[in-house]
Amino acid sequence: MSKRIAGPEIERLIQLLAKVPGLGPRSARRAALHLIKKKEQLFVPLTAAMGEAVEKVRVCSNCGNVDTCDPCTICTDPRREEATLIVVEDVADLWALERAAAMNVCYHVLGGTLSPLDGIGPDDLNLKTLVARVAAGAVSEIILAVNATVEGQTTAHYITEQLSSFDVKVTRLAHGVPVGGELDYLDEGTLTAALKSRTAF
Amino acid sequence: MSKRIAGPEIERLIQLLAKVPGLGPRSARRAALHLIKKKEQLFVPLTAAMGEAVEKVRVCSNCGNVDTCDPCTICTDPRREEATLIVVEDVADLWALERAAAMNVCYHVLGGTLSPLDGIGPDDLNLKTLVARVAAGAVSEIILAVNATVEGQTTAHYITEQLSSFDVKVTRLAHGVPVGGELDYLDEGTLTAALKSRTAF
Repeated sequence: MSKRIAGPEIERLIQLLAKVPGLGPRSARRAALHLIKKKEQLFVPLTAAMGEAVEKVRVCSNCGNVDTCDPCTICTDPRREEATLIVVEDVADLWALERAAAMNVCYHVLGGTLSPLDGIGPDDLNLKTLVARVAAGAVSEIILAVNATVEGQTTAHYITEQLSSFDVKVTRLAHGVPVGGELDYLDEGTLTAALKSRTAF
Repeated sequence: MSKRIAGPEIERLIQLLAKVPGLGPRSARRAALHLIKKKEQLFVPLTAAMGEAVEKVRVCSNCGNVDTCDPCTICTDPRREEATLIVVEDVADLWALERAAAMNVCYHVLGGTLSPLDGIGPDDLNLKTLVARVAAGAVSEIILAVNATVEGQTTAHYITEQLSSFDVKVTRLAHGVPVGGELDYLDEGTLTAALKSRTAF
């Protein structure tokens, strides 16, 4: 907008909404207008929910997850098996694994991967608490659910080394064909891994 | 999420974000996580901007636009020609016309169209203030920029009738081929209208 057509509060709202992933400058304008129109049904409750979340959100000192309590909901859930830890790079990965709901275990969020080129070393990751959790003795298996990138694999190797002196099984996610995936669209690396790790039918 | 993996504040935030147009359940989760991670750069300022907007936003008593002041920024802009009013259905249409920046004039937002089937009659629209603005005498032209739908055209006819006793020119937007549009993709109605209203080359 070249000319001012609305008060600075509305223009600032549109500017900030445009920075939310999934919204661009155009959809931010549409979203702002929708919020203004649905003031009582959506704008007021969303603003309140954001205010409460921004106030309460914190990083779990145990696992690195984000939540409104510390330790987080997952760490304090008595129904979860504490002997297995899934190590993930990011909270988004934790949420993705929880959506799959394949295992009822605990997590450890690294907050990134080792990346010397970007100046990210072991001290920048949430690694000390991982070693401390393993050293405490209650963990029997660590599942490395890091991304299948060079940085992810480097991080996996580093963690394995760090934990070599402890009596803990370290595993990683299987490589292979995605469920529902078509072979024709898969890269050579995935196909080679899937062939190597073939299982009895 | 079948199991609780985060505090109720975060789940409520995701639920409400999913109602924002442009975001769905999946992208709302991604947006919430992004907000939490960029707490100081985005979450805090966006929450503040929303709080301020929700507090200050109001409908202009003169033209029906939404703004943080009443009369709105457009109505109080001294550089705008007050003799011409563009009548639109919705604030979104006003914003679209302002983006085109073709005319430096004032607006009148109806807040909908006549639609007997949905029970929307003249009293449900912002029509009385339009007649009052015309009756005040400063307006010489009304441009009906309503949508080219049955309801929009019905509304346009109704407004023309209401204003027939005043000395005011009533015009409507031209129908024709959209700029950059391909004939092959256009419907018959548009092509017929474009042929009918052909201009000298």
